[in-house]
Amino acid sequence: MKILIAPDSFKESLEALDVCHAIQSGFSQVFPDADYKLLPMADGGEGTSTVLSYVLGGYWKEVVVNDPLMRPISAKYLLLPDATAVIEISQACGLHLLTIAERNPVVASSYGVGELITDALNEGVKRIIIGLGGSATNDAGLGMLTALGMTFHDSDDNTLAQGGGALTNLQRLDATSFHASLLETVFEVACDVTNPLCGELGASAIFGPQKGASSQQVNTLDQALSHFASVCEQHGYQDYQEIAGAGAAGGLGYALMSFCQAELKSGFDTIAEVANLSQHIADADLVITGEGKLDAQSAMGKVAGGVSHLAKLSHIPVIAICGSVDSLEPTQTSQFDVIMPSIQKLDTIDNVFKSAYRNIETTATNIAAAIKLGQSIK
Amino acid sequence: MKILIAPDSFKESLEALDVCHAIQSGFSQVFPDADYKLLPMADGGEGTSTVLSYVLGGYWKEVVVNDPLMRPISAKYLLLPDATAVIEISQACGLHLLTIAERNPVVASSYGVGELITDALNEGVKRIIIGLGGSATNDAGLGMLTALGMTFHDSDDNTLAQGGGALTNLQRLDATSFHASLLETVFEVACDVTNPLCGELGASAIFGPQKGASSQQVNTLDQALSHFASVCEQHGYQDYQEIAGAGAAGGLGYALMSFCQAELKSGFDTIAEVANLSQHIADADLVITGEGKLDAQSAMGKVAGGVSHLAKLSHIPVIAICGSVDSLEPTQTSQFDVIMPSIQKLDTIDNVFKSAYRNIETTATNIAAAIKLGQSIK
Repeated sequence: MKILIAPDSFKESLEALDVCHAIQSGFSQVFPDADYKLLPMADGGEGTSTVLSYVLGGYWKEVVVNDPLMRPISAKYLLLPDATAVIEISQACGLHLLTIAERNPVVASSYGVGELITDALNEGVKRIIIGLGGSATNDAGLGMLTALGMTFHDSDDNTLAQGGGALTNLQRLDATSFHASLLETVFEVACDVTNPLCGELGASAIFGPQKGASSQQVNTLDQALSHFASVCEQHGYQDYQEIAGAGAAGGLGYALMSFCQAELKSGFDTIAEVANLSQHIADADLVITGEGKLDAQSAMGKVAGGVSHLAKLSHIPVIAICGSVDSLEPTQTSQFDVIMPSIQKLDTIDNVFKSAYRNIETTATNIAAAIKLGQSIK
Repeated sequence: MKILIAPDSFKESLEALDVCHAIQSGFSQVFPDADYKLLPMADGGEGTSTVLSYVLGGYWKEVVVNDPLMRPISAKYLLLPDATAVIEISQACGLHLLTIAERNPVVASSYGVGELITDALNEGVKRIIIGLGGSATNDAGLGMLTALGMTFHDSDDNTLAQGGGALTNLQRLDATSFHASLLETVFEVACDVTNPLCGELGASAIFGPQKGASSQQVNTLDQALSHFASVCEQHGYQDYQEIAGAGAAGGLGYALMSFCQAELKSGFDTIAEVANLSQHIADADLVITGEGKLDAQSAMGKVAGGVSHLAKLSHIPVIAICGSVDSLEPTQTSQFDVIMPSIQKLDTIDNVFKSAYRNIETTATNIAAAIKLGQSIK
């Protein structure tokens, strides 16, 4: 029996790879001779490149880049064996890099992201996978594009300062020194937000406040980004400002689409494709996925729902082992052949987290035992 | 597929029959054509006769008897179709019948138990199953035996008053008027305590205080019961005072063994035998049992452990569906082919209790689904 184990992490308690090991350990007690393939998954958020590193190998490269306030910091990205780089933008411009007092999206810059991309291009990569999420910036990629060689000028032909606020003064842009390798590089962007660049649902209005913008600054930034998009269009760049995801990461989604021909996909879809999940599923007799919490609100969980969707396409049975299960609709439960929570008893949340490995293992053993029972009962 | 469903109640949340229905409902969603046999179980405590009534039919008879303080109350017992009565002694002499201020085992009498037995004998039963437990009395059956026609005399040949304290004055007993049918009646007593009649582990020392006895009264009662046993032996009755269970229900265990040739068995064994559990198991392809809480302390639960023991003897696979599972030893988990808690998430204890039916149903469905998976995967 070929068993593919492809769970998400159990947020706050267990990494995806540990979940894989717990499931394998539990199943092996009943099916010691089964052929297990471990494929830890992620949804494009935290832990994504760690998971891809395990699945695809490669190595981490550490680079000194500028943080959102243009101070040097060490950031890392993953180089996969197939000339692909995996960059999480939060490494260079993450909100977690600033104190609360330092947060100010009017001046915060995505420059470091451009430096990471430059470094990867200089390594000779042909594909760059970018994880958007957790940014402190709202500069529509002004910083990133600057680091990649694009220049931005005001009406006096001075180059612009960093930060989304500076875009207000943009008069023209100059791609003369834009990094030459960019045209030959495929950009795949993992992005789970669907906001446009501007307006009521735009980057500034929706994500600005949590990055430290006052309501007046939100207005300023929204107008600045709108002006930027107009100038870009005047310069012949395709207008992506209304496309879903343009407003992701303070407009980095827009910049990556307009200037790097990036394709935006959901985080799970991106990872599933890079990890060749569909093929692994098609090769399996049984797929086991899982999430810390499966409920109606999380749309079955991005990972568990995504894995089950692909498994159903291949007509491979799929089991979900979760931390807890809450209020699922029949259409949701029908996505899985078996759904089992792993919680064993009422306890403190801390103890439940601490027991996660053992509980998953126990649950896996008992599901395997039920399957084995089925093999003997007619 | 023939499926026997034989769970205990989930204490505080669901009757055993409701647990049966929840399991059947869940399993039926996957195996609608299976042949289900529902056999709710009990451990000899509360709910025992309700369970036997469902399993074996029969009817309830309501009788006015004397409570522990010799006041009339209404009590009921079960008459099974095979000339068997099921009597729970707490109906007539239960601690719950008294206020805390009224509790006094020096005077409390088991007279009402004798009246229930008398009524059953007059109905022509050939077997009486008695559930010990929850008594307010410590009279070694003085009251019960009096109601059955035995007379007890002091040194002035006056008949004794009721209550364990009166036994101190016992000089002789007279069986002339003892109910004639008793010799032809089989007594089976469900009893899960192993205490002897007297001494440090005896009825008075261990159970006296919770029935309202002071430490001085405990001593008085212990000596009174010891004296009673001596007088009985002088009159040619076999001495059962050291036998496990003699101290059950304030010495009713002793009286039933010495005067009624009763056989004491564990509550579960008694019910399993009456309900013909072994045969039902042998007829099944799969057995499903369950308990509210399965843990190391409860010796796997009297019912779940007992059902699994019998199932293993017949080499029939057995599944336990529980409310929660806690700290089982490998030797305990190996008693079951599959053990699944039904709790789905962290919640208040009240909500967990309220969700019990649905959680059991969901868990049953998913176990059934895993079994079905096993039927198709090789």
